[in-house]
Amino acid sequence: MQGNGLFQFLTFLLFSIINTDYGTYLSINLGFGFGVAMGVHMAGGISGAHMNCAITFTSCMLGQMPWKKFPIYTMGQCFGSFLASVTIYGLYYALIWYTNGNLTVTGPRATAGIFATYPASHMTLWRGFIDETYLTGLLQLCLLAITDKKNSPALQGTHALVIGVLVVTIGLSLGMNTGYAINPSRDLPPRIFTSIAGWGNEVFTLNDFLMVPRLHVCQR
Amino acid sequence: MQGNGLFQFLTFLLFSIINTDYGTYLSINLGFGFGVAMGVHMAGGISGAHMNCAITFTSCMLGQMPWKKFPIYTMGQCFGSFLASVTIYGLYYALIWYTNGNLTVTGPRATAGIFATYPASHMTLWRGFIDETYLTGLLQLCLLAITDKKNSPALQGTHALVIGVLVVTIGLSLGMNTGYAINPSRDLPPRIFTSIAGWGNEVFTLNDFLMVPRLHVCQR
Amino acid sequence: MQGNGLFQFLTFLLFSIINTDYGTYLSINLGFGFGVAMGVHMAGGISGAHMNCAITFTSCMLGQMPWKKFPIYTMGQCFGSFLASVTIYGLYYALIWYTNGNLTVTGPRATAGIFATYPASHMTLWRGFIDETYLTGLLQLCLLAITDKKNSPALQGTHALVIGVLVVTIGLSLGMNTGYAINPSRDLPPRIFTSIAGWGNEVFTLNDFLMVPRLHVCQR
Amino acid sequence: MQGNGLFQFLTFLLFSIINTDYGTYLSINLGFGFGVAMGVHMAGGISGAHMNCAITFTSCMLGQMPWKKFPIYTMGQCFGSFLASVTIYGLYYALIWYTNGNLTVTGPRATAGIFATYPASHMTLWRGFIDETYLTGLLQLCLLAITDKKNSPALQGTHALVIGVLVVTIGLSLGMNTGYAINPSRDLPPRIFTSIAGWGNEVFTLNDFLMVPRLHVCQR
Repeated sequence: MQGNGLFQFLTFLLFSIINTDYGTYLSINLGFGFGVAMGVHMAGGISGAHMNCAITFTSCMLGQMPWKKFPIYTMGQCFGSFLASVTIYGLYYALIWYTNGNLTVTGPRATAGIFATYPASHMTLWRGFIDETYLTGLLQLCLLAITDKKNSPALQGTHALVIGVLVVTIGLSLGMNTGYAINPSRDLPPRIFTSIAGWGNEVFTLNDFLMVPRLHVCQR
Repeated sequence: MQGNGLFQFLTFLLFSIINTDYGTYLSINLGFGFGVAMGVHMAGGISGAHMNCAITFTSCMLGQMPWKKFPIYTMGQCFGSFLASVTIYGLYYALIWYTNGNLTVTGPRATAGIFATYPASHMTLWRGFIDETYLTGLLQLCLLAITDKKNSPALQGTHALVIGVLVVTIGLSLGMNTGYAINPSRDLPPRIFTSIAGWGNEVFTLNDFLMVPRLHVCQR
Repeated sequence: MQGNGLFQFLTFLLFSIINTDYGTYLSINLGFGFGVAMGVHMAGGISGAHMNCAITFTSCMLGQMPWKKFPIYTMGQCFGSFLASVTIYGLYYALIWYTNGNLTVTGPRATAGIFATYPASHMTLWRGFIDETYLTGLLQLCLLAITDKKNSPALQGTHALVIGVLVVTIGLSLGMNTGYAINPSRDLPPRIFTSIAGWGNEVFTLNDFLMVPRLHVCQR
Repeated sequence: MQGNGLFQFLTFLLFSIINTDYGTYLSINLGFGFGVAMGVHMAGGISGAHMNCAITFTSCMLGQMPWKKFPIYTMGQCFGSFLASVTIYGLYYALIWYTNGNLTVTGPRATAGIFATYPASHMTLWRGFIDETYLTGLLQLCLLAITDKKNSPALQGTHALVIGVLVVTIGLSLGMNTGYAINPSRDLPPRIFTSIAGWGNEVFTLNDFLMVPRLHVCQR
């Protein structure tokens, strides 16, 4: 479990910060997607690379995993992604504080987006909820296809790479509405961290949009 | 058949929308190409990943598939890509309506290109037809090479990834003239959808160019 | 042999045109590199994917191929890349003529670079020659490493993809000086085509730089 | 050993120069990462692809390699990356001198960054040290996961490619603070070369930041 958390932690790390000066939407997607690929290599043998409580939930529902494992896995995932937020904050302390001067959720130099996802300004709460549910379902469906031995699976030993390509593709094609969290345990703990670390309650309430991840977690 | 349609549907989904604020020509190509790769993983075991009626046509002509399957596959593909248009329209309703204000086929904020391909302004009807025929032939030839066990095929289990790279490459290198539909069943149904949903008849007639996909479908 | 030429032809096609409005240096590199990958899939089983007379020359020198095959392979390669130039010219006739108005080798809308490589303005003849020789050697060395069963080769069936990555990498890292022809049989025939098709003798003489590919061919 | 140095040399070559006119942060990352991949293909069978003295150090510490090999490997690596600097300087002599006019470490046309890494302006010595230590540890951890037969390793024969993806991902996600040297033997020798070749002592002392790689080397 702890190990599982650690992997989630590392995966998350690999995703971060790029939406600063050097980053483009493409490079953020590549960093996030192949960060997931590295997480699969690390956690694949031990926990089956469960780094997403929505995917863990589905596995339990499909009977591939006993329900008693669900809370433990989810806790490990949340612990990992919270720890990742702390580490990123430590490594980029200077950039976040001295470059920007203050911690904001919106505006041209907003830094809250380093840690959690925020929907685009044209979204509403329910649109965001539907969008995230759809994307997470698409992720789940593709993951099942990639590993389904009776269908047309990716070669054993290339799963991590192909899953990385999948996450990049979802982000490039359908990530503009909500920032594609597609993973409650990757989104909520860093959001809680930012509310503690100085970004304030706006991380939860910005135009009511930011309820989305919370609701999403509740529903699953 | 229905399953086949569904896969086409999902594949198409992964391709969309990117030509909005965040998208570049490169990221649209990557999203489309690797969306096809995910479609191959999903549909490979069931229908041989037939998501393109031009490729299905060639398979029948080469005797790899009985002709009676052709209309059923094509209908499934068209059903899938029409359904995909509806879904994309639903997910991006807010972006399309509230951001742009109206539904246009040309101009700086044209949104018809989200659903179907439109040739560049220097193209004519016959040039577009020749171009699309050539590109679709190139796609077919490369697909045969990638899977040809007597030649130098891609490793079993990496076909989906390599096919994704192929579609990206065709788009990056030769997609500028017509937007590289290279797939009648991916282009016509979404075009019909846009004409119904409010973009009007211009989707079929813009400078006579937009006859291209229709002709293309007829010929095959 | 003819087959070999055809493959070269197709490979070259996949590389082209991108340095127009949509293209960036990155996307040209990706299109060229993975175009080579597709050529390897097509020609791998028949000719060992010899699409480069410099590589063919080395193979003969290392005794992996009889010398009598060298002129035939080279002729096939040249025939293929000349045919590719004609095809690209046909497909992009409208773009080249109506958009640009005239055929120029230098300047902001120069189109000669679609067909052959031109060194950057800070290069001289001898610098270009050394640079191209070095890059072609690097390509050869990496190709040998990728396929060397006694060392650490790429998995059989992924060679094409890895060779594509290699060509992309050489282009991104070291292609700025000369446009990295790294292949005399891919560069000279299209250059001859442009001189015939209307770009004039400047394609051979621009600041004496354009001797580079000719010399390069002579030396090998 | 000499061979090992040569491979390091070639790997480094593939990384270079791109931060000139054509390069973006993304393309530098891609060139560096897949340059490492090619180095793995070249050196994998002979030295286990040891191109990084920090990784070699860990291998010795884990008992996977005798300590007596450490100084020899490190010397080979340093010799290789110094030779690479000389070669790059030779190939890009014209670009560096005639385009820029003088050799500077900072400013809009600084060229020292072609050879060694320099931290961003918001970094301090100790922050840079912690950052580089963390990133090098992350690299080591992922390398162990990718090749760990008891966990979820990459397929034998795709290690080079996946390691390339890993280096790209670290660069895109976490390389902004220090330029991610993550390899003392790739950073110090080229830095020494630049101090000799005309960039002066500033390469070591710029705002005290440039102590980072030296300290890093000492500690390991």
